[in-house]
Amino acid sequence: MSTFQKQYVKVMGQPSEPADKISVIGTGQVGLSCCAFLIDRRLANHLVMVDLRQEWVKAEALDFLHVSSLLASPKIETCTDASCTAGSKYVIITVGTRPAGKSRLDIAKESLELLSKLVPKLVESSPDATYVISSNPADVMTWAVRKMSGLPKERCISCGCHLDSLRFRYFLAQRLGVAASEVNAFIVGEHGDSSVPVWSGVTVGGIALLRLLPNIGRDQDEEKWQKVHEDVVKAGSSVSKIKGYTNWGVALAIVDIIQAMMTNSGRILSVGSDIQGLMGVNDSVVMSLPCILGTHGVQKVIELPLTEFEMNMFEKSKEVLMKAQCALDL
Amino acid sequence: MSTFQKQYVKVMGQPSEPADKISVIGTGQVGLSCCAFLIDRRLANHLVMVDLRQEWVKAEALDFLHVSSLLASPKIETCTDASCTAGSKYVIITVGTRPAGKSRLDIAKESLELLSKLVPKLVESSPDATYVISSNPADVMTWAVRKMSGLPKERCISCGCHLDSLRFRYFLAQRLGVAASEVNAFIVGEHGDSSVPVWSGVTVGGIALLRLLPNIGRDQDEEKWQKVHEDVVKAGSSVSKIKGYTNWGVALAIVDIIQAMMTNSGRILSVGSDIQGLMGVNDSVVMSLPCILGTHGVQKVIELPLTEFEMNMFEKSKEVLMKAQCALDL
Amino acid sequence: MSTFQKQYVKVMGQPSEPADKISVIGTGQVGLSCCAFLIDRRLANHLVMVDLRQEWVKAEALDFLHVSSLLASPKIETCTDASCTAGSKYVIITVGTRPAGKSRLDIAKESLELLSKLVPKLVESSPDATYVISSNPADVMTWAVRKMSGLPKERCISCGCHLDSLRFRYFLAQRLGVAASEVNAFIVGEHGDSSVPVWSGVTVGGIALLRLLPNIGRDQDEEKWQKVHEDVVKAGSSVSKIKGYTNWGVALAIVDIIQAMMTNSGRILSVGSDIQGLMGVNDSVVMSLPCILGTHGVQKVIELPLTEFEMNMFEKSKEVLMKAQCALDL
Amino acid sequence: MSTFQKQYVKVMGQPSEPADKISVIGTGQVGLSCCAFLIDRRLANHLVMVDLRQEWVKAEALDFLHVSSLLASPKIETCTDASCTAGSKYVIITVGTRPAGKSRLDIAKESLELLSKLVPKLVESSPDATYVISSNPADVMTWAVRKMSGLPKERCISCGCHLDSLRFRYFLAQRLGVAASEVNAFIVGEHGDSSVPVWSGVTVGGIALLRLLPNIGRDQDEEKWQKVHEDVVKAGSSVSKIKGYTNWGVALAIVDIIQAMMTNSGRILSVGSDIQGLMGVNDSVVMSLPCILGTHGVQKVIELPLTEFEMNMFEKSKEVLMKAQCALDL
Repeated sequence: MSTFQKQYVKVMGQPSEPADKISVIGTGQVGLSCCAFLIDRRLANHLVMVDLRQEWVKAEALDFLHVSSLLASPKIETCTDASCTAGSKYVIITVGTRPAGKSRLDIAKESLELLSKLVPKLVESSPDATYVISSNPADVMTWAVRKMSGLPKERCISCGCHLDSLRFRYFLAQRLGVAASEVNAFIVGEHGDSSVPVWSGVTVGGIALLRLLPNIGRDQDEEKWQKVHEDVVKAGSSVSKIKGYTNWGVALAIVDIIQAMMTNSGRILSVGSDIQGLMGVNDSVVMSLPCILGTHGVQKVIELPLTEFEMNMFEKSKEVLMKAQCALDL
Repeated sequence: MSTFQKQYVKVMGQPSEPADKISVIGTGQVGLSCCAFLIDRRLANHLVMVDLRQEWVKAEALDFLHVSSLLASPKIETCTDASCTAGSKYVIITVGTRPAGKSRLDIAKESLELLSKLVPKLVESSPDATYVISSNPADVMTWAVRKMSGLPKERCISCGCHLDSLRFRYFLAQRLGVAASEVNAFIVGEHGDSSVPVWSGVTVGGIALLRLLPNIGRDQDEEKWQKVHEDVVKAGSSVSKIKGYTNWGVALAIVDIIQAMMTNSGRILSVGSDIQGLMGVNDSVVMSLPCILGTHGVQKVIELPLTEFEMNMFEKSKEVLMKAQCALDL
Repeated sequence: MSTFQKQYVKVMGQPSEPADKISVIGTGQVGLSCCAFLIDRRLANHLVMVDLRQEWVKAEALDFLHVSSLLASPKIETCTDASCTAGSKYVIITVGTRPAGKSRLDIAKESLELLSKLVPKLVESSPDATYVISSNPADVMTWAVRKMSGLPKERCISCGCHLDSLRFRYFLAQRLGVAASEVNAFIVGEHGDSSVPVWSGVTVGGIALLRLLPNIGRDQDEEKWQKVHEDVVKAGSSVSKIKGYTNWGVALAIVDIIQAMMTNSGRILSVGSDIQGLMGVNDSVVMSLPCILGTHGVQKVIELPLTEFEMNMFEKSKEVLMKAQCALDL
Repeated sequence: MSTFQKQYVKVMGQPSEPADKISVIGTGQVGLSCCAFLIDRRLANHLVMVDLRQEWVKAEALDFLHVSSLLASPKIETCTDASCTAGSKYVIITVGTRPAGKSRLDIAKESLELLSKLVPKLVESSPDATYVISSNPADVMTWAVRKMSGLPKERCISCGCHLDSLRFRYFLAQRLGVAASEVNAFIVGEHGDSSVPVWSGVTVGGIALLRLLPNIGRDQDEEKWQKVHEDVVKAGSSVSKIKGYTNWGVALAIVDIIQAMMTNSGRILSVGSDIQGLMGVNDSVVMSLPCILGTHGVQKVIELPLTEFEMNMFEKSKEVLMKAQCALDL
């Protein structure tokens, strides 16, 4: 303790614990970008960065801490396991393997191995936290995390189709000639190839597209709007085949989910949760639907009155996810 | 100049003019609240407050300036006429009379008298500014301002139905049990009793309400959603009959319009502009439609494919506004 | 509950309580302006407005709620007593009488009467909240609130000299020709005529003014910098003699104190707390010193190594406050 | 153009050009991180990313654009040269080589080669922009850019000692036990080993440290505060020896400089400019001093009344920079 502290700074109240502790598990490109936005937006007053590479994660933390005075002086801790995550409000799990060149199942198995070591300790340290999982493949891994942790449905969330929905709005906006923020549109189901664009609910500037184009997105659609959905499905790989990964988009989507929860905004985002009992689904399966988010995760789920065409896609998406879950042998 | 300035502060470049000059004409309750939010959100780096009460408007400016260090040190000027408004980017006109207890026509004529003195000088001083008018009755006054100034359509805007649309979202949200920000809905036409709720474009969480309730908002609607529109129409007076005026809501709506333009966001807001030639309207009349806003005002207008029921309401709204315009004898 | 809610919105988790409940007691000009900035800055996810004028406070709340979708859909409650304040994190007390034309003692006694009815119930409802008091005269009233409530020192805070310090920075900046935000300067002691400018700690752009002007602020100061302090002392009345009150500056100062605490920023603001045992003060007296703020109020107090000249002023300020406290006969 | 655009979207005003065009030259780790913060903070309504790796920079841009609706729908362009930078308001130059394992002179020569190809075209395209240079070694490269471009002093800025000053505040804060944002302190001179900590102007919570510790930072200092400066000098390499580079800190410092200028805040940051004629410097040399920033770069420079000890360091720093400039043979 410096002379300054001893002589001039008198303690009055109890030391205030930083109010909002967020742990980011895995500080690869996605995890690090999450950290950057969490700190810069002043969402994480207390950030924990967890990575096996101890020296490296410390260096990353220092790189932020050096400009602490620009960042509302956050507390940043690093560790190689769950040891400094105790009492987190939110835990973002990004660990996993990069998809490039591997089979879907191999990716899942590799991610699962990493998660099965980490998750039990994390949940023991922060039993009341809400968990957001982006480890590949996100929906199946979320289902696995819940299975190995016993977390309640509402606090074990896949970042799911939020990114897909954002990309859908972007590609729709490009074609419509408006700003992406002005397009109201959701993608539900699997985060991946079998995702379901909800054409029946798309509006732009007060116009419901389905009223103008009753066949929008279907085979009979002469304007070929399904192309927009194809662009969404290919969006991730169009970036990662060049960069080797995607980070900004997925990190901003994750941070948006966290912000929606922290501010108890009631915002409705398409994230993945176990929807057993909803939409006619009898099994336990993690899929995305529009969800009302609150401080403690998913508060409410919107059961969409899909068109027959959309419902067929949704059921196929469910089959894809069920099959992937089964393949894990949990 | 202080010794400090003379000895230690050396000029290097040219003095930077504050970039974003905004003038607020009339600093009654609405104008002052606009100033407060414009400064606190750092939208107005250079604010001009215009009011006939010279001492008073200076005192209001000082009240802000005293805490300048919390507000990014804005430049604030005051005057009693257009003299210090030159070169404004945006001009917000709030002068006018409070509606309480007066006939519609009397209100219009009183406002008109105030505006006809001010507007020509304002437009001479800031010919390239975009003007946002909230003086009562806003749509008709905007039409009058354009008539007396020759401003192009896109830079002479009534705050119009933006506030009505926000209130529509609030009352819909209350009934739907969701957050107001998650309701996508517009009101168009007149800012007032004849406003038109666009039920055909309302979506919540990916669900278009019209698909579920084909009669929503009509006489045949068994769930009586038209009650929501009635609440919107009465919202202003429900507040002003107690307070004597409304300020927070209308000021936040105006500041939102300014922010949408300044950030060139492409946001679509229901504001009023002269829509001659659109929606089958042959006459020059200021009415609200969803508009894409850019730095220099309304960039594009959305021509809504209204249902027959909505179109009938829209035409009635036009008649109301035409009649009010004619009564001004301009 | 609407059909929509029943049919399409399925509850998943427990309802999330809004995380950050703030109660504003007294919605006169200062209280209302606090509410406006608290909501617009998204600090109060859950705002309680307390005022004896039941209809009126409801109308004010509605004026905000109508534009809920622009404000992250806050929860706003109103009541006429402490009944809906339970569990607040922060309580801002602004009730009181306007100083105009009354003796110091009369003002204090009138404020005291209002507070003695309210405070016990408030503290019973929110025993863990931090209280910020701006009722006139703020320091003495804070001392009284603590006496009647038994609140710990660190959670019973006068807005004190924060506003004076901000005004000091503004008037210094005007004379120095720099932006107010770039002046580092504090005023301590009483919020009022006997306040103490800490000239020994003023820096601007890396220059300590005392090094350049060893007599700065003293009688011997040939550049007459004490004029700047005189301007600070007169600042409030220069505004209120015209408007009848001040609101923007004081509200922004209060909201800044709340924000500093909520974000656990470690920011050092000159607020008032009971400094018995510090700075050689043996008695219980509420005075301002630079304080490190945390989530639960004042965490640490800076004991300033004042110059002899400053220390003399500080002691006189203490005498003024002690005398005012005694006059209350508590 | 889609049917939607043709049928329903009617052009009203002229297309609004995005107001704030910022070009980032070089999208390595530092440049990319700048882009991320510029977009996420809504500073760059129109961002240009320039990199020789055409495919790669496009992929990075897409990664941001996909989540456009979260980012106020910015316009993002990419190119491999100056072709799409025309009319930029600010140009950030980050191209250059990583310092690891190379001599100071070699780094300078490599950076110079890259800059001499780019800078003339950039300045031709955006003659009125303000240029911020972080290419290694930043001060010398800024001097070179000015030499090859003829840009006026105030619009050719090295990010200079802003990062050093931020790190200084961080390490001081760590030792003082306060938040970094509450430490007022500057480092001037060279961004690098010969940088000069201005101990005479350090204040914390209203206390000037020099008053308490007259020898602070000097050899005679028993508390060894010079250790804090040593930590600052080593800070960059302590991170880069592990990560291979630093990015977050330097990017946040650069974006802070841009933000200070764009908002015309009058903020005083320690950035580098040609200070010929100031501080007794007769030669043209780019060094950092506290500078008042405005829309068009450095508006004013603070001539610090340094102590003799500080002045000696400052002169040594000048020698180092002069020597490095000369070695370039420009």
